[in-house]
Amino acid sequence: MFKKRLFTPGPTPVPENIMLRMAKSIIHHRNPEFKEIFAELNENIKYLFQTTQDVFTLTSSGTGAMEASVANVINENEKAIFVNGGKFGERWGQLIKTFGGIPVEIKKDWGDPPTVDEIIELIKKYPEVKAIFLTHSETSSGTITDIKEISRAVHQFSDALIVVDGITSVGAIELKMDEWDLDIVLTGSQKGLMIPPGLAFIAVSERAWKKINQTENRTFYLSLKRAKKALESGDTPWTPAITLIIGANEALKMIKQEGIENVWKRHSRLAEGIRIGVKALGLNLLSKSPSNAITAVLMPDGIEFKKFNDALKHEFGITVAGGQENYKGKLFRISHLGYYDDFDMISMISALEFALKKVGYKFEPASGVSAIQNYFLLNL
Amino acid sequence: MFKKRLFTPGPTPVPENIMLRMAKSIIHHRNPEFKEIFAELNENIKYLFQTTQDVFTLTSSGTGAMEASVANVINENEKAIFVNGGKFGERWGQLIKTFGGIPVEIKKDWGDPPTVDEIIELIKKYPEVKAIFLTHSETSSGTITDIKEISRAVHQFSDALIVVDGITSVGAIELKMDEWDLDIVLTGSQKGLMIPPGLAFIAVSERAWKKINQTENRTFYLSLKRAKKALESGDTPWTPAITLIIGANEALKMIKQEGIENVWKRHSRLAEGIRIGVKALGLNLLSKSPSNAITAVLMPDGIEFKKFNDALKHEFGITVAGGQENYKGKLFRISHLGYYDDFDMISMISALEFALKKVGYKFEPASGVSAIQNYFLLNL
Repeated sequence: MFKKRLFTPGPTPVPENIMLRMAKSIIHHRNPEFKEIFAELNENIKYLFQTTQDVFTLTSSGTGAMEASVANVINENEKAIFVNGGKFGERWGQLIKTFGGIPVEIKKDWGDPPTVDEIIELIKKYPEVKAIFLTHSETSSGTITDIKEISRAVHQFSDALIVVDGITSVGAIELKMDEWDLDIVLTGSQKGLMIPPGLAFIAVSERAWKKINQTENRTFYLSLKRAKKALESGDTPWTPAITLIIGANEALKMIKQEGIENVWKRHSRLAEGIRIGVKALGLNLLSKSPSNAITAVLMPDGIEFKKFNDALKHEFGITVAGGQENYKGKLFRISHLGYYDDFDMISMISALEFALKKVGYKFEPASGVSAIQNYFLLNL
Repeated sequence: MFKKRLFTPGPTPVPENIMLRMAKSIIHHRNPEFKEIFAELNENIKYLFQTTQDVFTLTSSGTGAMEASVANVINENEKAIFVNGGKFGERWGQLIKTFGGIPVEIKKDWGDPPTVDEIIELIKKYPEVKAIFLTHSETSSGTITDIKEISRAVHQFSDALIVVDGITSVGAIELKMDEWDLDIVLTGSQKGLMIPPGLAFIAVSERAWKKINQTENRTFYLSLKRAKKALESGDTPWTPAITLIIGANEALKMIKQEGIENVWKRHSRLAEGIRIGVKALGLNLLSKSPSNAITAVLMPDGIEFKKFNDALKHEFGITVAGGQENYKGKLFRISHLGYYDDFDMISMISALEFALKKVGYKFEPASGVSAIQNYFLLNL
């Protein structure tokens, strides 16, 4: 008998108190009781994004908020840079195309984030670029991009908007929207926010609003102008996912109580523990710039992913994520994003050893758990 | 941020599916829907006790079932042996006295179980003894008593009843009521049965029924005759703890699915892992005959229990049990009883190292987690 344990980058584990809060009798979304909760959420979500700007709640997945960031911002035939270094970076390109923009691609190997120089070079080549679409934490490869430095460098001589997919970074990895002068930042609910999927959040700077106001409306449901108008009276333009908003509000209270800096530190610590444990077992990471939200580990030579994953999942109850696209079957991804602590990570490395042993991979027994335990002990 | 994790010998962790089942709208206990559930429980509980005899459900704690085992069995001035080698063995003596019996005490040091010879010697000295009250797994000291051998030896020449407190053994440690010829076996709900406290279960042999029928009624609520009469029509004599019975029924389905032998093996494995981990850290066990339900660990010299426990609980979210009576402040007890798996045990040993480090105890870092991980790996 092994319990079920989830180590996927969304959904992430939902704290019991949030699940129980959401299980209470449903209320109506135009009632004062709900409006009060939504008002509280609208304050606390700013803290999550480290912004004084309004953050809009969309009833959609994270991709819905990505679509909102393109559809409300890019007019037909306007140029926008995006970085194709993973499945989610690639998605920015698909969205820009869908809405008639001209995508300017920076192609990178998976695991290799864009450099400031690469972006500056392109901005200089195409000064007419209206926005740069970035992925803070690329979930497909477990890679972090230095959006702080990119934003600083770009804004020194360009009005191009910095649009950040923060889906697996907001609430997990340091991100300061105002201080870093980011223009649009978005996330989904089932990530660092620790609630089930169904909501997305999008924060918009004054610079971004100027551009949005000059952009032709090409979305109704995801219109940020409509969202802004509704929010002025404390509402959403359409029926929101009521229970998820109630859950998100609880989650934000938990994050405020822990303190956002502590949340970032915890993720950094858990991620480092996992990296140390994985490397001690002789395994290699895909990424040159590993994200603190998720660790992509290359399958060792001669080990079949399916067999390994079957052992992990069906014998030991652990669900991790596999590789995507070209990396299907070539890597597995351990999430440490959201509601996790040290002991979850120790359990994960212990289970990893169990599954590796089952598929005949040779390693020094207990070397993974020793390594992560030693790291945690040294950093108590 | 550390999650709350419970390692106490009751309540033990309750599986989510059981909690959710119990949270459904309440039903009435004389309705067919409830009677069907209770009938199913009454079949499955026999499997838990490994008996074909009826097992009675009392709405009480385990102590209520202990009281029923004395009040229904021992007449005034009848002799009964009990073993005082821990807080719960001692309780048998208090109960025998309360109901006017004459307790014949076997006094043992905590952690030292009674031997077959000690009991046989007393039975020979007092052939008029009506019953021997034993504690299978003594929770206060983490000690297992060989009730199988005691029962075999006693029944070779005596009709004295073998009454077993199986509170922390039933559903955790091998116990075969019929095969071992035990007369009364009882347990509580918040132990191996993995549900919250509030129910006790008591199984009664034919030999025991003969004695009960010759015993004066000195309890109304806990009358086994009344329980038997009610059970004949599929009922309880008094209002039962409805939701707990529904939960117990779910728990029994889980135990049947895992298989009782597998449940025993799992507890043996988890307990051995904990013992190996604890010893690797240089700590000592109290018991000479350790129980697979709970491990009592002596506080190392110079370490204050309160400081250690505060670190474990308040810094790392782990609740263990302290020592009782003379061992208050001198030991801590790790439960591995009920709904636990390997990774829970690894987490426990990891946390133990964290707390020991915090209070300045010297040990080879990660030696505990290495030891338990190696044991589990060798026994996958």
